[in-house]
Amino acid sequence: MIKIAIDAMGGDAGLATTLPGIISFSHSYKSDDIEFVVYGDGSLIEKYFAQNPCQCIYSIINTGSKIISCNEEPIHAIKNSRGTSMYESIRAVSDGMADAVVSSGNTGAYMVLSKLLVGTIDGVLRPALGNVIPTKTGRTIMLDLGANTDCTAEKLFQFAKMGKAVAMILLNKRNPIIGLLNIGTERIKGTEILGRTYDLISQDNSLNFKGFVEGNNITDGSVDVVVTDGFTGNVVLKSIEGSVKLVAEILKEEIKSNILSRIGYLLGLKKVFNNMRKNFNPSLHNGAPFVGLNKVVVKSHGSSENIGFAHAIQTAVELVRNNFVESIKNSLGEFNGEC
Amino acid sequence: MIKIAIDAMGGDAGLATTLPGIISFSHSYKSDDIEFVVYGDGSLIEKYFAQNPCQCIYSIINTGSKIISCNEEPIHAIKNSRGTSMYESIRAVSDGMADAVVSSGNTGAYMVLSKLLVGTIDGVLRPALGNVIPTKTGRTIMLDLGANTDCTAEKLFQFAKMGKAVAMILLNKRNPIIGLLNIGTERIKGTEILGRTYDLISQDNSLNFKGFVEGNNITDGSVDVVVTDGFTGNVVLKSIEGSVKLVAEILKEEIKSNILSRIGYLLGLKKVFNNMRKNFNPSLHNGAPFVGLNKVVVKSHGSSENIGFAHAIQTAVELVRNNFVESIKNSLGEFNGEC
Repeated sequence: MIKIAIDAMGGDAGLATTLPGIISFSHSYKSDDIEFVVYGDGSLIEKYFAQNPCQCIYSIINTGSKIISCNEEPIHAIKNSRGTSMYESIRAVSDGMADAVVSSGNTGAYMVLSKLLVGTIDGVLRPALGNVIPTKTGRTIMLDLGANTDCTAEKLFQFAKMGKAVAMILLNKRNPIIGLLNIGTERIKGTEILGRTYDLISQDNSLNFKGFVEGNNITDGSVDVVVTDGFTGNVVLKSIEGSVKLVAEILKEEIKSNILSRIGYLLGLKKVFNNMRKNFNPSLHNGAPFVGLNKVVVKSHGSSENIGFAHAIQTAVELVRNNFVESIKNSLGEFNGEC
Repeated sequence: MIKIAIDAMGGDAGLATTLPGIISFSHSYKSDDIEFVVYGDGSLIEKYFAQNPCQCIYSIINTGSKIISCNEEPIHAIKNSRGTSMYESIRAVSDGMADAVVSSGNTGAYMVLSKLLVGTIDGVLRPALGNVIPTKTGRTIMLDLGANTDCTAEKLFQFAKMGKAVAMILLNKRNPIIGLLNIGTERIKGTEILGRTYDLISQDNSLNFKGFVEGNNITDGSVDVVVTDGFTGNVVLKSIEGSVKLVAEILKEEIKSNILSRIGYLLGLKKVFNNMRKNFNPSLHNGAPFVGLNKVVVKSHGSSENIGFAHAIQTAVELVRNNFVESIKNSLGEFNGEC
């Protein structure tokens, strides 16, 4: 059995998303070897599952209504985190009671608590938040997406190595192509840190390095892994989501505004747009692993819906099944970084 | 008459884009009060205009074939820049021979040479590269887009003030809403520099400050000006262009793959997609002003086509007509920044 600890109180909607998410997962994915340990307000959770029976194996750990809010500063959140569903669900994996934990809660607090309780793999300078982004030819892994707002060359070098391991599992690629995000492709472009990172990755023969890539290369399928600092990665990811949403909305309005195009839409394009929406539905790419920790810790988007949370659970399951932590350890090779 | 100096040799295609761009401008925009001073290989330019008569007023300054390549480091480029079309066209505005200069050449070299020859407005810490981005409700100005890879709080504060002036002219907004790009909207989020910038802008009552905005807010129309450092701005702009292009391409393929949707497309959606393409055609937003210089200096995208270069010229004209430099000076108010 694979045991997944669920922080049921996390995210904008809390239980209203996480519990339906568990049910949605059980309907959508192979789950007969999955056991959920659900952390949160016991009575509410019991009540929900009584009204909405889940075709899954689960146990409930009552942590009451104590939660970490989304706006709390990590430092402050940690002080008062004991007993919260987030803290206890992370502790479950650190204690070996569960194989992975999934939460939609405060990203900063989740990251810091995970590092404290689960610990960082020896040699890892900073764990990173990685996620899948849809591209023209398939999908790409981008990291970091917000765990580290500033990064040294050594950290970025490690993100490249760890990103390779993530792509091998989540994208099923044998020798993932790695790109380093910059404002130009020439070696002279960008910051001094990126220049040094470029050299570090270039000198590592185990990495299939394409060199510097630009913003437009993230979605054109030219690389499997995009390496960047957490600030840039976070802003870029949201920019891409926003612009894709915008295009869809404008197309919708344009179509409505014209009777012929409305007919055309009903005639054959409805399906096209549904495929499109499915392709780019952030929910179907939800579930960002913290890369570099001693256990599988997956972050679900705070505003993700049921299906999104279900996909985050599936990501956690996939990572456990493929010995994610071992893969990351192996990817690091000889430790040659500096803090 | 408004005199526009043209660096005809700049950009990926050089004369093959800039000269048709001038002609395209003369066809598309009111140009009877515009005079072009075209810098480049005189014989080639004469030959082109002999074969492709331009309905415009122009003079040619022969700078031969000497150019600054796109990959040259600014420092090195500057040493050998004397006599190039870029150098001489910038000098034209600095000498008062022209009101504005437009180039598609090496951005770094163009920036440095412009600062050297044209000079920075007193009190401006660092000029910024600003540009227009299509949004749900219209357009927004984002700056910096690559002139400053790292920025202090004081620089970003000035970008906010100068961005307001740009939005008032190019977006025709009376009191533009300003957003500061970050990885979250709460004051506690992001870097220490962004926190200090947040406070500086908040304390300035002349600025209509919305606070921190995230990547998805760039295109959702919630702000008129997006303030960010040049690294983030450049990567984000290209990410947005790339993802929009991707959506269009996938839709096209989806439509082709289905006979009913092909009929639907021909029936009424072709127009929709053409409007869409027009809306998001980077060419129709090409022309990024260097904000904070003593003259109007406009950067055209290196890979822009004729129409794009024409639009960059139009941007320069619009800025000259609206006393851009004066507006920037007024926007700065009392100088209170530090290098």
